[in-house]
Amino acid sequence: MEKFRQFIENYTTLSDSDWKEIYKCFEQRVFDKDQVLLAEGKVCRHLYFVESGLFHFYINKDGNNITKFFTEAPYFFTSQASFNAQKPATENIQAIEESIVWQISYNQANELYKLKSWTEFARKIIQEVQFFTEEILEELQTETAEFRYEKMLKNEPELLKRIPLKILASYLGIAPQSLSRIRKKIMT
Amino acid sequence: MEKFRQFIENYTTLSDSDWKEIYKCFEQRVFDKDQVLLAEGKVCRHLYFVESGLFHFYINKDGNNITKFFTEAPYFFTSQASFNAQKPATENIQAIEESIVWQISYNQANELYKLKSWTEFARKIIQEVQFFTEEILEELQTETAEFRYEKMLKNEPELLKRIPLKILASYLGIAPQSLSRIRKKIMT
Repeated sequence: MEKFRQFIENYTTLSDSDWKEIYKCFEQRVFDKDQVLLAEGKVCRHLYFVESGLFHFYINKDGNNITKFFTEAPYFFTSQASFNAQKPATENIQAIEESIVWQISYNQANELYKLKSWTEFARKIIQEVQFFTEEILEELQTETAEFRYEKMLKNEPELLKRIPLKILASYLGIAPQSLSRIRKKIMT
Repeated sequence: MEKFRQFIENYTTLSDSDWKEIYKCFEQRVFDKDQVLLAEGKVCRHLYFVESGLFHFYINKDGNNITKFFTEAPYFFTSQASFNAQKPATENIQAIEESIVWQISYNQANELYKLKSWTEFARKIIQEVQFFTEEILEELQTETAEFRYEKMLKNEPELLKRIPLKILASYLGIAPQSLSRIRKKIMT
């Protein structure tokens, strides 16, 4: 849990008593590689902190899985629309590799808003998630798949190695064969 | 300002004293049609409530303006990345029609976090903005421009009439001529 506390402290000041309050609401879970954490149609009942591992959010569209984005440890995530309204999700969340997460229920997460530290943390992390989402949106609107791949290769080379070709191609909005061609072109 | 108070009250309970605190931090501004509220390279110094009118956020890419999204009254907006870090913006914000906005400075907006009502409001509105952004991202990843246009036509027909063809086409990621063709096809 030390990583977890450190993570929150990047966003807010945390007293020992606040940390105890937060800590006791979370429970650990381990997800196997490829295990589905949330399936479309189910209500997302938890907010998660991923301590180690990697997840992707994806939509099933006419039988094809299209990855919206990735969540790499250490970070917080949930299926926002489903979790906030406690209604069925329209997306899926799956572990790309074995992952350790800490989860808190909807009611307990709301309970924690009595803490100023948690409230500040929640606001700042949502702001950051909004920033990341907007960044992906903007890139998708203004850049080619090749440019986006090259940017990931430059900024997140280690992450890139952990993502299967098919999942990465769907995130970039191209066929796996096209991604293979881009990769070959860059390597030569 | 009555619309403004009502807007906030959709998200949180507001005492008269909290409302007075909030109210006194905002000042009114009027933007003409086509007036630029924020230009790329400038720091976004304010958070805005648009009481009437319509704005679009756009990126200039190789001389072409690409619209990221729209903000229609009544709603809150700012250039998030620029405002939160007080660093130069990479995007532009422009009024599509004459618009009345209420603005609050960065320091004053942070000051207001001493109020529980404002803190709750801020968190919920950011969550909602995140939801809208994710929705646009997901549609862009999974749907065609034609589908996205038809959805807007069905869900937001009045808004659609207010957006110039060129701006709408850039938002949909297609040439204005292609959008004209889609429009003709739907009307026949």
